[in-house]
Amino acid sequence: MSELLVGRHAVLESLRARRRHYYRLWLEGDGQTAPKGSLAEIVQLAHKINLPTRHVEGGIFDRIRRAQLNPQGVALETGPFPYAELDDILSLASRKSEPLLLVLDHLEDPRNLGTLFRSGEAFGVDGVILPERRAAGITPAVSNASSGAVEHIPVALVGNVNRTIDRLKKSNIWTVGLDLGQDAIPLSGADLSGPLAVVVGNEGKGLSRLAREKCDFCVTIPMAGSVDSLNAAIAGSIVLFQAFQARSQGETAA
Amino acid sequence: MSELLVGRHAVLESLRARRRHYYRLWLEGDGQTAPKGSLAEIVQLAHKINLPTRHVEGGIFDRIRRAQLNPQGVALETGPFPYAELDDILSLASRKSEPLLLVLDHLEDPRNLGTLFRSGEAFGVDGVILPERRAAGITPAVSNASSGAVEHIPVALVGNVNRTIDRLKKSNIWTVGLDLGQDAIPLSGADLSGPLAVVVGNEGKGLSRLAREKCDFCVTIPMAGSVDSLNAAIAGSIVLFQAFQARSQGETAA
Repeated sequence: MSELLVGRHAVLESLRARRRHYYRLWLEGDGQTAPKGSLAEIVQLAHKINLPTRHVEGGIFDRIRRAQLNPQGVALETGPFPYAELDDILSLASRKSEPLLLVLDHLEDPRNLGTLFRSGEAFGVDGVILPERRAAGITPAVSNASSGAVEHIPVALVGNVNRTIDRLKKSNIWTVGLDLGQDAIPLSGADLSGPLAVVVGNEGKGLSRLAREKCDFCVTIPMAGSVDSLNAAIAGSIVLFQAFQARSQGETAA
Repeated sequence: MSELLVGRHAVLESLRARRRHYYRLWLEGDGQTAPKGSLAEIVQLAHKINLPTRHVEGGIFDRIRRAQLNPQGVALETGPFPYAELDDILSLASRKSEPLLLVLDHLEDPRNLGTLFRSGEAFGVDGVILPERRAAGITPAVSNASSGAVEHIPVALVGNVNRTIDRLKKSNIWTVGLDLGQDAIPLSGADLSGPLAVVVGNEGKGLSRLAREKCDFCVTIPMAGSVDSLNAAIAGSIVLFQAFQARSQGETAA
């Protein structure tokens, strides 16, 4: 089954990462004007892998716009997202001194998911773990919301997030849950150096009780204000930022 | 002209803040079941201000869903968002020892705007300044995306963001731009204590050259990864988080 990636970022990053099967590139217009900027790079990368390219006006692009998406003149027909195995991610993590993983425990909103991938990529996340049921998977909308970042990151689907937390701990990776509870450590007081997996819960319900108990420790983001909490993607990104800072002190101080 | 706030968070926070004119509350259903949780609080607050309440099945709620919104059983007909004057915000700021303001320089995406308001409220922002032209204003969609946070925050529209930066500086408020340029200070090395205004630029283009030059200094968020940058709402929220940390060290250490 093929998927349709749309928008310059998602299409460009996918072709740069070259992890999918690619079937066809669609460009909007009559093909008489030379593409510029990122569109030129897209066309170049497509040419390099002999990807069939079609110029169209309207047609598929009108359909994309009717689905409330902004194709920015480009769409890419690809195979499905190439998920990794959990073992691959753990093996990759074991070769790094301070691997950083992200576990997304039943996030529902594709845009939050995409945003977390974009932040994850910016903050050096080595792999992301998602539950295979009752949660948003890596759809083209997620790739889009991630600005294409998800195309570069190893992602594994797991049957049971709680068992995965156990496996991470057995692999000597510290698991830190993002939580609003009373037992959580304020983020600024938490040591986020070393091998680490950040566990982010559902937008509405937060972490499940079991996931919270299984984590080595939980952090909370201190807040003022009268509204309950931060957006899940914001909260997760702030924890990833802190973890990235904790593992790049040497570099940023230089 | 009336507006329609939808969803439990936006409606509840608006009625809690009580800053708008309120015309009518719409509840989905036949009115035979007693409302629970946040819906019960909404009904109670509406009752307190003698707000006419209508129970309907379908109708207005079907129209809301067709507009791709999730009303969660409730809609509130209100007057327009009650903007503040810049002078009010400056006068409010002058009464605080470490006021924190947020200047959003031509953000286009209502969801980013809403998310930044939500983060702003969580991190103690005292007021937000928006350009009145070529930018997203406070629509019901923004209130929704902010989880209702915007209903609590003073917001001023200004004709010229650059002149506003000058005024902020004259009011002894430090202005810090969020930037990716070479001259920017890494966020962790910046002093964000004291009276501060954080200036966040457009999603695609970032800060304008003039705004960048006018700011007292610029900060950048160090990143790894191959994708260009963070989502504007994420980047802005991380700077606000750091500014909040800088002004609440005493509290979080306790």
